[in-house]
Amino acid sequence: MKVSEIGQFALIDKITRLIEETRDSSGAWSHILEGAGDDCAVWRGESGNYLGKVDCQVEGVHFNLDIMPWQDLGWKSLAVNLSDIASMGGIPRYALVSLGIPLDSEVEDVMSLYGGILELAKQTGTAVVGGNISRSLVTFIDVHLVGITGNKAGKYLTRSAARAGDVIAVTGYLGTSAAGYRVLTDELALDKASDLELKKAFQRPEPRLEEGKLLVDSGVEAAIDISDGLLSDLGHICQASRVGANLDLTKLPVSDAVKKAFPDNYYELALAGGEDYQLLFTAPPAIIEKVIGACACPVSVIGEITAENPGKVQVFNESGEPVKISNGGWDHFKSKY
Amino acid sequence: MKVSEIGQFALIDKITRLIEETRDSSGAWSHILEGAGDDCAVWRGESGNYLGKVDCQVEGVHFNLDIMPWQDLGWKSLAVNLSDIASMGGIPRYALVSLGIPLDSEVEDVMSLYGGILELAKQTGTAVVGGNISRSLVTFIDVHLVGITGNKAGKYLTRSAARAGDVIAVTGYLGTSAAGYRVLTDELALDKASDLELKKAFQRPEPRLEEGKLLVDSGVEAAIDISDGLLSDLGHICQASRVGANLDLTKLPVSDAVKKAFPDNYYELALAGGEDYQLLFTAPPAIIEKVIGACACPVSVIGEITAENPGKVQVFNESGEPVKISNGGWDHFKSKY
Repeated sequence: MKVSEIGQFALIDKITRLIEETRDSSGAWSHILEGAGDDCAVWRGESGNYLGKVDCQVEGVHFNLDIMPWQDLGWKSLAVNLSDIASMGGIPRYALVSLGIPLDSEVEDVMSLYGGILELAKQTGTAVVGGNISRSLVTFIDVHLVGITGNKAGKYLTRSAARAGDVIAVTGYLGTSAAGYRVLTDELALDKASDLELKKAFQRPEPRLEEGKLLVDSGVEAAIDISDGLLSDLGHICQASRVGANLDLTKLPVSDAVKKAFPDNYYELALAGGEDYQLLFTAPPAIIEKVIGACACPVSVIGEITAENPGKVQVFNESGEPVKISNGGWDHFKSKY
Repeated sequence: MKVSEIGQFALIDKITRLIEETRDSSGAWSHILEGAGDDCAVWRGESGNYLGKVDCQVEGVHFNLDIMPWQDLGWKSLAVNLSDIASMGGIPRYALVSLGIPLDSEVEDVMSLYGGILELAKQTGTAVVGGNISRSLVTFIDVHLVGITGNKAGKYLTRSAARAGDVIAVTGYLGTSAAGYRVLTDELALDKASDLELKKAFQRPEPRLEEGKLLVDSGVEAAIDISDGLLSDLGHICQASRVGANLDLTKLPVSDAVKKAFPDNYYELALAGGEDYQLLFTAPPAIIEKVIGACACPVSVIGEITAENPGKVQVFNESGEPVKISNGGWDHFKSKY
């Protein structure tokens, strides 16, 4: 059977089961708090916990150099990994960069790529400590990050901690990155401020590191970053936590620029667009209230966790009727740009 | 300028300088003992030092699926990284695997690939704690490893610790992997035992983890693993240590099977073949003697470190005359399989 037939998530499940079969309780494994399956791996250190993460940007899949300047590509390659550290409530420490580039790549472009990585690394206190360069037919940038849990008790956020009765909340706005992608590919004409906002969301996402730390310190336990799309990533929380979720379509935070540029389908972008790198989290109402009060960025309550329909996300419209959703989010082996 | 014009090592130099420019002495950087430039990065932990490494196998560059079974490909993808941990004298702990695969890949092949990774992971006490899968036009396997220094004093091996007067030694045999590659591509007919020995060296290299630990505990300070080729990797030691090296051609350890299969050019395979994943190290004669006595695998003395000709490797034949070397080893952007 081809991977395109079973899809990314079924393949990951199969691999995760294979890993679990070889797992034992001795040596390095005895330090593992979270293995494959969450946004980061977590292992116990001497005086705190470590987070490990790898994520990759592949030409023709994650990016297209026609609409992605090299410097931004470098920035984004690190940002998508930092976002996973943020979604666990961690602090980034060390990055290793593995680069695959074609023989006819320009040295200047490779230096711009690294320039973008180093710009965001400096801004976030991440030390780029090494890497690898290989020839490849397509360009890819694989960033490996090691982080630490910033919380004094060593606590971190997981996908599996959502409980029935929790409120679902999200930082910032949704669908902005997908809107930016469409503006870039379709060369839509927007006013200058909207054009900048949308493109920046796609090309230079800002990982929510401060917010992640705030969440864990406020007592939130369940979170994920929105990379595949709200529906898909909320689905990951529901599956890992064995709970259901009801989303209120009217409460999804969508910026005015996105509404104006895509008046007919902005909800679709917000639900399934992906790559927003906002934090999606759930917690009892009192904790969510505390987060809203303390967070520098907008935080929107968009639904609630239920005991019913474990693993499923239901979306309700302004009349309280369930909405039929066709596109569940990004699957590497089923989606096409 | 194209990367093919400046080559891999000049490009790495440029990137390393760019990283150094953004480096500061605060935060995560204050824990860095070795940044880019050695086989692994090293950072200080609470009760020991950590090692970090990434290395990648790319289809059409590092492997060709016609001569590389998927299970072996998985094994080798982890082995090349473990070899870098070995070359620092470390102990592997946590691996993250980033996989790029085409849409029409067979699920069974991907599972075999992971099977090979997990086989070697179990054998070496490495916990595979997560990873990433992405669609890609070409298959690539990027393995990220975190290790620890096994030595009680936190000591580790570097490329930059060779001193004039040191003896140069190497574990095992050289040129075996390159010979195996030629046997596979040219479909040479050998006796069964030779065929197995040579192909195995190329398809399933054994990282020298035990030997790496023995070296550091024996007082060796300078080492590298042979991935690019003896000349190239010894050159890396000479450049990092600002010393020269004289190699004695007649002392290079080459197995009988390689000599028999390649009677006219086995020295060339030993000098520049690469991918042997043996440990190349230098130390004062007394320490080398101690290593030879304690090591379970063959250890050969092959030359000496000099104060003259810093950064250069000279090779001498049986008459003591310098040999002119044309092929300096593997460069990703200048070499072709």
